[in-house]
Amino acid sequence: MNIGVLGAGQLGRMLALAGYPLANRFTFLDTTGHPSAGIGDVMVDTDQKHLADFLAKVDLVTYEFEHLPVPLVQAIEEHKPVHPSSEAIRICQNRAEEKALFDRLGIPTPAYRLVDSAEALEDAVRELGTPVVAKSVTEGYDGKGQAVIKTPSEAAEAWRSINHPRLIVEAFVDFVREVSIIAVRGRDGQVVFYPMAENLHVDGILRYSLAPMPDLDAAIQDTADGYIRALLDELDYVGVLTLELFQTPDGGLLANEMAPRVHNSGHWTMDGAVTSQFENHLRAIQGLPLGDTAARMPSCMVNVIGQEGEAARLLEIEDAHLHRYDKSERPGRKLAHVNLLAPTHAELIEKVRRCAELLPGAPTPRFSFE
Amino acid sequence: MNIGVLGAGQLGRMLALAGYPLANRFTFLDTTGHPSAGIGDVMVDTDQKHLADFLAKVDLVTYEFEHLPVPLVQAIEEHKPVHPSSEAIRICQNRAEEKALFDRLGIPTPAYRLVDSAEALEDAVRELGTPVVAKSVTEGYDGKGQAVIKTPSEAAEAWRSINHPRLIVEAFVDFVREVSIIAVRGRDGQVVFYPMAENLHVDGILRYSLAPMPDLDAAIQDTADGYIRALLDELDYVGVLTLELFQTPDGGLLANEMAPRVHNSGHWTMDGAVTSQFENHLRAIQGLPLGDTAARMPSCMVNVIGQEGEAARLLEIEDAHLHRYDKSERPGRKLAHVNLLAPTHAELIEKVRRCAELLPGAPTPRFSFE
Repeated sequence: MNIGVLGAGQLGRMLALAGYPLANRFTFLDTTGHPSAGIGDVMVDTDQKHLADFLAKVDLVTYEFEHLPVPLVQAIEEHKPVHPSSEAIRICQNRAEEKALFDRLGIPTPAYRLVDSAEALEDAVRELGTPVVAKSVTEGYDGKGQAVIKTPSEAAEAWRSINHPRLIVEAFVDFVREVSIIAVRGRDGQVVFYPMAENLHVDGILRYSLAPMPDLDAAIQDTADGYIRALLDELDYVGVLTLELFQTPDGGLLANEMAPRVHNSGHWTMDGAVTSQFENHLRAIQGLPLGDTAARMPSCMVNVIGQEGEAARLLEIEDAHLHRYDKSERPGRKLAHVNLLAPTHAELIEKVRRCAELLPGAPTPRFSFE
Repeated sequence: MNIGVLGAGQLGRMLALAGYPLANRFTFLDTTGHPSAGIGDVMVDTDQKHLADFLAKVDLVTYEFEHLPVPLVQAIEEHKPVHPSSEAIRICQNRAEEKALFDRLGIPTPAYRLVDSAEALEDAVRELGTPVVAKSVTEGYDGKGQAVIKTPSEAAEAWRSINHPRLIVEAFVDFVREVSIIAVRGRDGQVVFYPMAENLHVDGILRYSLAPMPDLDAAIQDTADGYIRALLDELDYVGVLTLELFQTPDGGLLANEMAPRVHNSGHWTMDGAVTSQFENHLRAIQGLPLGDTAARMPSCMVNVIGQEGEAARLLEIEDAHLHRYDKSERPGRKLAHVNLLAPTHAELIEKVRRCAELLPGAPTPRFSFE
């Protein structure tokens, strides 16, 4: 089966590496002019002139990032099966739609308001209490269009700087940790859930994901499973879906955002789980039975950002698995990740520290349970 | 690093799948006109006209099969590093050289004689006792040039049918099982050993490899480690080497033959070991530290020969890992393998049986320890 992938970055690369053993072939459609997959058949199509060629080559279409023009994906759906559907993309591209879906399904979120003027923004800031974060409801590729507002008097300036007709204003959450749940839904509606991961971000970039968490109550995993299952079923979703959440001091979960695709916080599954998120995504979209999502042992993914570490040093760490994306170095760019496995969390943390010391600029990890 | 691979079959394909995460790129040189790797940059060169192009592209050369013209490999060695060296190929292509090396290093083998006439063949049959197997000392791609001789009177006919100026005559061995040891030697001389596998062949084709064996005395693994280390050091070898052996009723080991490459009996390591044979081969030839060879749990590789099984059924087996080579079906052709893992050998055997039932024509497995 030839699988068409919209986008041609490292997620597509890792999908392909998981799919060759299933006898899949891959054609990537890159609309950015900067593909980095480095595998399969990569079609660069910045002017949407090669869509027919792409469609003629592929049996089935999926995507590795969600910032795609919805009409493009809808047009593709008229010719080939697309999993997940364009509806998932449409919702994930609009924070207001996403929050409305969470509300409708009873998935709790941080308090928020939607505003469409500077005055309404100032009112929302007063209502929610400071600080708040204001974001345009739609987002470009670059993650811009956000402002942290510390007093109501800053609202007018924030409105001007974001310069978007509709904003979402979110209360800050007192959280213990950021977590994510990744689940997979098959064409037949079967759903499987990975153990939740604890994620450490620095400056908005994921640096570490650890799973399973040693102190996670089974009831909390069940709650998260219920939330993501509701999303999957509501969207009649096929493939991998990721839901990022905050865990609050009382143990509750608040949904932050979702991503309709394989996710950086699931890269640990490549070595740490019986079946990786990439393989399970491919199994799902092809109608194959889903694989076991259990963790083989405590696992941590360490992102390599901006600058590579020395491979020979990283590979000296026992049960370390290096996944390079074969990209050139650039500040803030995701270049690789290292998956570390250990029989106990204490040994795992020690390995993560050793690994971090070998990566230029890597922050010292500090997990909530330490 | 761009790695040049001589040969472009499934072993090359799996090398590439293991090497992309190390940021390796792959160029295959296929001299047969029938490449099947289906990944990387495949150069078909049946008339040796593209060698310069190949050499210009690659930093380092390895190979996935040993039936290569030695002068070709020697010529490549003048331009680029080749690991393992052409000397390993030269010895593995000649059964007399191979046996002489085993003898020199004190590695026991079944009793054998070298003969260069029909009369000498008949004498050897009488000396060794029937039955014996007579083989040409050099072998083509197809494994032909062999005859089983049951009485001395058959010697003349066997000599004619093999039609080769020099034969090796081997006594039949009373063995308990066929086993293999795979080891990896780094550029710095570091050597690591995988747990030995028990191999089940039918009609000369490997069908099952199981490792670790539940009843293998540690002293026997040590003995095998010593034999293969002697070979690796003697040849100043870099990369993966495989040694196939017979285990006799008294627990002893007799060397059958060696292969200077990743090996079908090591495919279980892709899912069952901390580091696969493919990754360790690539680490070795690039001068990277070698990875842990330990088994994560009891593992069995099931070959898919001639006809594919239904993927959806195979993937229903828990902790089953399908590795298809994306080749067309043909009797006797290796099309895929399934790696099965289980916490106990009893559960593993049960899974292997279930898997075999899903594969058309697969023989019922019967391991020595059952």
